[in-house]
Amino acid sequence: MNADVDADVDASLDGSLDAVLVGFADRLRQATRFNIGFPGATDIDHTDLLSWAGRLLNNVGDPDVDGLAANHSKLFERRVLRFVAELLRAPVGWWGYVTSGASEGTLHALYLARRRYPKAVCYYTTAAHPSVAKAVDILNVDTVLVRTTACGEMDYHDLATVVGQHRDRPAIVVATAGTTLTEAVDDLREVEAVLDELAVTRRWVHVDAALAGIPLALLSPDERPGLDFADGAHSLVISGHKFLGAPMPCGILVTATRPNPAPGLVPYSGSPDTTLLGSRNGHTPLLLAHTVDRLGWEGLHARAGQARAVAGHAVRRLSGIGWPAWRQHPHAFTVVIRTPPQVVRDKWVLAGDGRDSSHIVFMPGITLGQIDEFVADLHTALTPRPTDPRQSIVDGRGSGVVVPPQRVPARAVT
Amino acid sequence: MNADVDADVDASLDGSLDAVLVGFADRLRQATRFNIGFPGATDIDHTDLLSWAGRLLNNVGDPDVDGLAANHSKLFERRVLRFVAELLRAPVGWWGYVTSGASEGTLHALYLARRRYPKAVCYYTTAAHPSVAKAVDILNVDTVLVRTTACGEMDYHDLATVVGQHRDRPAIVVATAGTTLTEAVDDLREVEAVLDELAVTRRWVHVDAALAGIPLALLSPDERPGLDFADGAHSLVISGHKFLGAPMPCGILVTATRPNPAPGLVPYSGSPDTTLLGSRNGHTPLLLAHTVDRLGWEGLHARAGQARAVAGHAVRRLSGIGWPAWRQHPHAFTVVIRTPPQVVRDKWVLAGDGRDSSHIVFMPGITLGQIDEFVADLHTALTPRPTDPRQSIVDGRGSGVVVPPQRVPARAVT
Amino acid sequence: MNADVDADVDASLDGSLDAVLVGFADRLRQATRFNIGFPGATDIDHTDLLSWAGRLLNNVGDPDVDGLAANHSKLFERRVLRFVAELLRAPVGWWGYVTSGASEGTLHALYLARRRYPKAVCYYTTAAHPSVAKAVDILNVDTVLVRTTACGEMDYHDLATVVGQHRDRPAIVVATAGTTLTEAVDDLREVEAVLDELAVTRRWVHVDAALAGIPLALLSPDERPGLDFADGAHSLVISGHKFLGAPMPCGILVTATRPNPAPGLVPYSGSPDTTLLGSRNGHTPLLLAHTVDRLGWEGLHARAGQARAVAGHAVRRLSGIGWPAWRQHPHAFTVVIRTPPQVVRDKWVLAGDGRDSSHIVFMPGITLGQIDEFVADLHTALTPRPTDPRQSIVDGRGSGVVVPPQRVPARAVT
Amino acid sequence: MNADVDADVDASLDGSLDAVLVGFADRLRQATRFNIGFPGATDIDHTDLLSWAGRLLNNVGDPDVDGLAANHSKLFERRVLRFVAELLRAPVGWWGYVTSGASEGTLHALYLARRRYPKAVCYYTTAAHPSVAKAVDILNVDTVLVRTTACGEMDYHDLATVVGQHRDRPAIVVATAGTTLTEAVDDLREVEAVLDELAVTRRWVHVDAALAGIPLALLSPDERPGLDFADGAHSLVISGHKFLGAPMPCGILVTATRPNPAPGLVPYSGSPDTTLLGSRNGHTPLLLAHTVDRLGWEGLHARAGQARAVAGHAVRRLSGIGWPAWRQHPHAFTVVIRTPPQVVRDKWVLAGDGRDSSHIVFMPGITLGQIDEFVADLHTALTPRPTDPRQSIVDGRGSGVVVPPQRVPARAVT
Repeated sequence: MNADVDADVDASLDGSLDAVLVGFADRLRQATRFNIGFPGATDIDHTDLLSWAGRLLNNVGDPDVDGLAANHSKLFERRVLRFVAELLRAPVGWWGYVTSGASEGTLHALYLARRRYPKAVCYYTTAAHPSVAKAVDILNVDTVLVRTTACGEMDYHDLATVVGQHRDRPAIVVATAGTTLTEAVDDLREVEAVLDELAVTRRWVHVDAALAGIPLALLSPDERPGLDFADGAHSLVISGHKFLGAPMPCGILVTATRPNPAPGLVPYSGSPDTTLLGSRNGHTPLLLAHTVDRLGWEGLHARAGQARAVAGHAVRRLSGIGWPAWRQHPHAFTVVIRTPPQVVRDKWVLAGDGRDSSHIVFMPGITLGQIDEFVADLHTALTPRPTDPRQSIVDGRGSGVVVPPQRVPARAVT
Repeated sequence: MNADVDADVDASLDGSLDAVLVGFADRLRQATRFNIGFPGATDIDHTDLLSWAGRLLNNVGDPDVDGLAANHSKLFERRVLRFVAELLRAPVGWWGYVTSGASEGTLHALYLARRRYPKAVCYYTTAAHPSVAKAVDILNVDTVLVRTTACGEMDYHDLATVVGQHRDRPAIVVATAGTTLTEAVDDLREVEAVLDELAVTRRWVHVDAALAGIPLALLSPDERPGLDFADGAHSLVISGHKFLGAPMPCGILVTATRPNPAPGLVPYSGSPDTTLLGSRNGHTPLLLAHTVDRLGWEGLHARAGQARAVAGHAVRRLSGIGWPAWRQHPHAFTVVIRTPPQVVRDKWVLAGDGRDSSHIVFMPGITLGQIDEFVADLHTALTPRPTDPRQSIVDGRGSGVVVPPQRVPARAVT
Repeated sequence: MNADVDADVDASLDGSLDAVLVGFADRLRQATRFNIGFPGATDIDHTDLLSWAGRLLNNVGDPDVDGLAANHSKLFERRVLRFVAELLRAPVGWWGYVTSGASEGTLHALYLARRRYPKAVCYYTTAAHPSVAKAVDILNVDTVLVRTTACGEMDYHDLATVVGQHRDRPAIVVATAGTTLTEAVDDLREVEAVLDELAVTRRWVHVDAALAGIPLALLSPDERPGLDFADGAHSLVISGHKFLGAPMPCGILVTATRPNPAPGLVPYSGSPDTTLLGSRNGHTPLLLAHTVDRLGWEGLHARAGQARAVAGHAVRRLSGIGWPAWRQHPHAFTVVIRTPPQVVRDKWVLAGDGRDSSHIVFMPGITLGQIDEFVADLHTALTPRPTDPRQSIVDGRGSGVVVPPQRVPARAVT
Repeated sequence: MNADVDADVDASLDGSLDAVLVGFADRLRQATRFNIGFPGATDIDHTDLLSWAGRLLNNVGDPDVDGLAANHSKLFERRVLRFVAELLRAPVGWWGYVTSGASEGTLHALYLARRRYPKAVCYYTTAAHPSVAKAVDILNVDTVLVRTTACGEMDYHDLATVVGQHRDRPAIVVATAGTTLTEAVDDLREVEAVLDELAVTRRWVHVDAALAGIPLALLSPDERPGLDFADGAHSLVISGHKFLGAPMPCGILVTATRPNPAPGLVPYSGSPDTTLLGSRNGHTPLLLAHTVDRLGWEGLHARAGQARAVAGHAVRRLSGIGWPAWRQHPHAFTVVIRTPPQVVRDKWVLAGDGRDSSHIVFMPGITLGQIDEFVADLHTALTPRPTDPRQSIVDGRGSGVVVPPQRVPARAVT
């Protein structure tokens, strides 16, 4: 084992597997309730499909061509793709597949974009997911980063400035629908306006909608920023294990056109090699198809509404005890808060920017009870305890750094 | 749905999910027994772990650093990595992770190689898996293809020729341990000799050992071609859903050194971003750890021996009825046969080169009974049926093309 | 035949040719009267020349050198070239040839421009014909697109901005005299002013005058925007099958100078290889020479005036029934209208931007009777029909989308 | 008019068109009989279709999608494409269109090849048609010329040498099926063997089969060199006005796969913009469909056989009078002869290399009578005329240069 690993970890490496499994089970059971910083919905019951879990399902190649072997779930893959593509108003001739996660989807989308425009410059914001920076490095694409507003949304004036400096080259723009830290949404209609004004018609707009793509697409286009194919996207990726609650990481990539060159049938597998990787997990399409089929548009829409209500409740409760908390927009599941004291973070798993700002992502499955308990714990931690002179108020506040005023946006909502 | 899909498929797209699931179950049940052309072992029972299947396990980031969230299985990932790395004689300081499949492993290995040698030329054979060609295209690496022998093994003289034309540039060589069509193994000791002779010290040798890596590594180094780190590999990838029998596609990448530059902790997840993709399936490490732990070296070694015995039996039985069949080497699970008549292929799923050559991959789980039934079916198809004058012998032989003699290798074994 | 073709089409593929010819004749006869969206003049009678139609006429090589074989019509080609070159005020030493269409002319002109200035940047507007984008892609020329006004004319300020960013490189500017959608005309005098102001003397200005070149050139230079050689063009292409009414697609390219380097005589054909393609259609020069010879300047000028009068009549009639309709300038043959209801478009073939805007091109041959019938059909479609309760007004209006006000130009004329 | 043109020519430029037309008719009538050096078949009667000649037929965009306007002949285009694609054993998914000539087809094919392999090197022989050199110059593709044998066929050893020097780059190989001067045919099976031996799998083989594609494809593959899709072609172009006898230059391009990226429907025309140029002549598809439909495989096969018989007759007759004459192979229509004396060439239009070698192309339509008359004229010219002492034998023999022995190939046939 690598020398960087802790001694603790090394120790358990050598125990019997059975003993380690017991500890693993205990840890997971305890952790789920307090894991509120990462966006995996926990309200979907997959029990119906567990009978398949022990059998190899391998979706080799293109989802639209079954291939030689029978142990695949492409029929279910096509069902979930159709649901998502229609929701995202994809044009006739759209294509897509279920990926191992949003990162693979973004890498494949940018690979297709580079094949279409080999000399393009790629533009994305400083709030974009790290997978975007990794993808352009892998693909060797020239890149310009775009500034964001204080809340993490793309600064469209800055986009105009940098694209305006490279009008001799095609543009690949990566917009984010739901940034990791604040769930900010880059508005595709603004991106389109910038590119139109600069006459950059050689363009590919990819949307990393891992977090917020499905929930926003369930709203009327008038109620939400531009994010889908009708708003100007050429490709879009969502996560399958966030709002859709799949029990293993996965994603869905949809593109406006079928990848080219069409590679033809590969004799070995009998299906065209159009995806980024070869063998693909056949369980995740089954799980996703089951979820969208059972819930439908109405069920998903209702889940999103309930989760947002919990998020709104959280902001009000936290504000009630005087702790800074806000949401970027009324559709956000993410509540940004000042990083709580360490004692609270020892119990509750939050995520954050590593400095003064943390967040909770109110995916379906987080209850009002959980947020009430969290607020109570925070309140307790903030209250001076006269019986214990060793702990001062200041100690209890963790870093104690005040959130800079400029990071509390004017548009923040509850 | 895309217009290229068959009408049949479209029809079932609109059925109820429950009805479709029933048909799916029937299809899978019937297909398993006859699916002998693709290398997924079917003898591993994963029932013990099914209780985890419905729960999100997400191994974000580096396997050696747990990160903030608790719902991961990195402890198991480290156990299976250690087992595999030791088996492959990886040096101190090795690194690795469980991937979504061998394709991701190869792409990441070549990405690391390009980061180490940005001006390298990549060499691989015409028998290499298509994932290699895709990886070098994604990575924009200059490439030279190397000829193979008639049996699909790298032509080392040709390697010397082409590397000799580019001694001013570092070399990335991809060797295959178990090609898709014939299970040929490129011998790393020969590759090393070529590179040494040409004094190309700036080198990265990656081994795509998806199919044969583990079974060959279980043998003594004297009994098998060079393939592991002690034989000269800088990175090596194996499949988890082939010999190791995982029920969903996965792979294991091992590299001789930890990725450089070390990216440091990512605040959001609390684990360094060292892998190709972000969120990673946490179920496959658990399944793989369970398998290697339960079986151990002895159990895996015994399984491999038994499967090879079945393969040898198959060659003898097929030769017994006069049907051309051979194995590339005595450790091969793959039996290459002349493509059988269509009536046989309607029942048995084989893979092949799309022309006159097909193969069966005798992964653990294929029984003597299955091969006997296959041989009987083939024999029946070849026997003239006097009671049915409509069918002649010639009709029954499918393409009827004789395997060209030069494709029957001198080294072929039974 | 390719799988993408409709079943209907496939069916007729297998009928007897005679039967298919009969259906073809019927279709064409019926279609001509209603085909008002595409700019092919239909008033020229070519009967005199039909006796040549069955004989191979092949204008291999340069129009100025006859070559070895006699079966060419270069004498006629030179006659029509001279007429057009004089009309366009081409300088002494001009050159040209009859092409297979304006697209070939633009490709050849830009090829000559790139040979003159290998490091040039090419500038053209977003309203330019797709053949320009294709040509620069074929030629691998760096490109910057220039914004247009709402009416589709080049935004000269934007041209100044982008040329100003690349003053270190020669400029190839493509101006359009008659854009496809609105018949906007880029004014060469403005283009010249921009290039002069920026001191970009290394320039090549190509004019894609496919639609409007001849009719505008028949006017006094004071009455029309700058478009010809005296206004700054280095090359200019017109269509032969639009205003000039040739019965097969063709074009005329004129350049200010003879192609350089002069390739000398090619022994095989006996004529220099100065054109883009080799064998060239010898019928179209004959047809074009016949047309310009018979009509002369006066005849062509009169035809253009009559056609513009019909266009003006159409705008007044359409406005009379309240349907939005406008022309870009008083010399335009193109009337832009709000896209009519589907029932109207089922009968009349219009062209458009695929959204809310369509157009009619009033080439010579369209009669007042046709436009009156069209307006009557439109009026009927807009009138509620009380006797048929199944059809509401709203249904009858097709997309019903109102033309956005910003697309109605201030300069619009009737 | 340009100063390079002869004074004679200028004079006729100013005559009345009617007078010029009369002279033109006379010239054509007299010339046809003696125009035996250029390969246009003259035996096809197109009278049935002349009624269409005066009407605009414009096949805008892709042949498989009709588009908005009705005045096209795409149905006939699809018929002739299907006939040719089947004859050339094109794979499922083939695509093609009727071009303005073979030059356009080659340019488009190489454009598609460069899009597929942007870094490719293009290889073609010194006997290739000048359109190939022009295409690679237009496309800016790196190029290596390959030596030919004395007869004009590709030297495959030299191909191996030069491709072997660039194995790090994809290869575009242009093979010629019927070179201009000797009708030599580059054997695709040899080309494939070279590329296979060098492991150059990233390849695009284009066949310029302008002259001999159809006649050779009518033979059994065993009787002729490799030239079609089953022999390894990725694209292939034939002429429509040579063996197929169309009365205006045209060609047919077929590719193994549909062009990508699929550009989608263009609103303006309603058909994808997949061809090199935009508006395309709709008369030539009609003429070609009529020819292949009326003649069918049998008729075309018989015509080819008859024409070859005339060619064989010519070689025997010429040899009979001692004049050097040979054919490259028994399927050739081209008879290469020593360039005859000037007095013969004043009457008979030959083509040649501009030095000592000329040729006659025995396309269908040339009669035994014509060849007998030609041989008689040649014999007369070679016979000393004692009554005219001013003319010596040497004068009568034109250049008098003897064909170098190495240019008379061992394989020459009669």
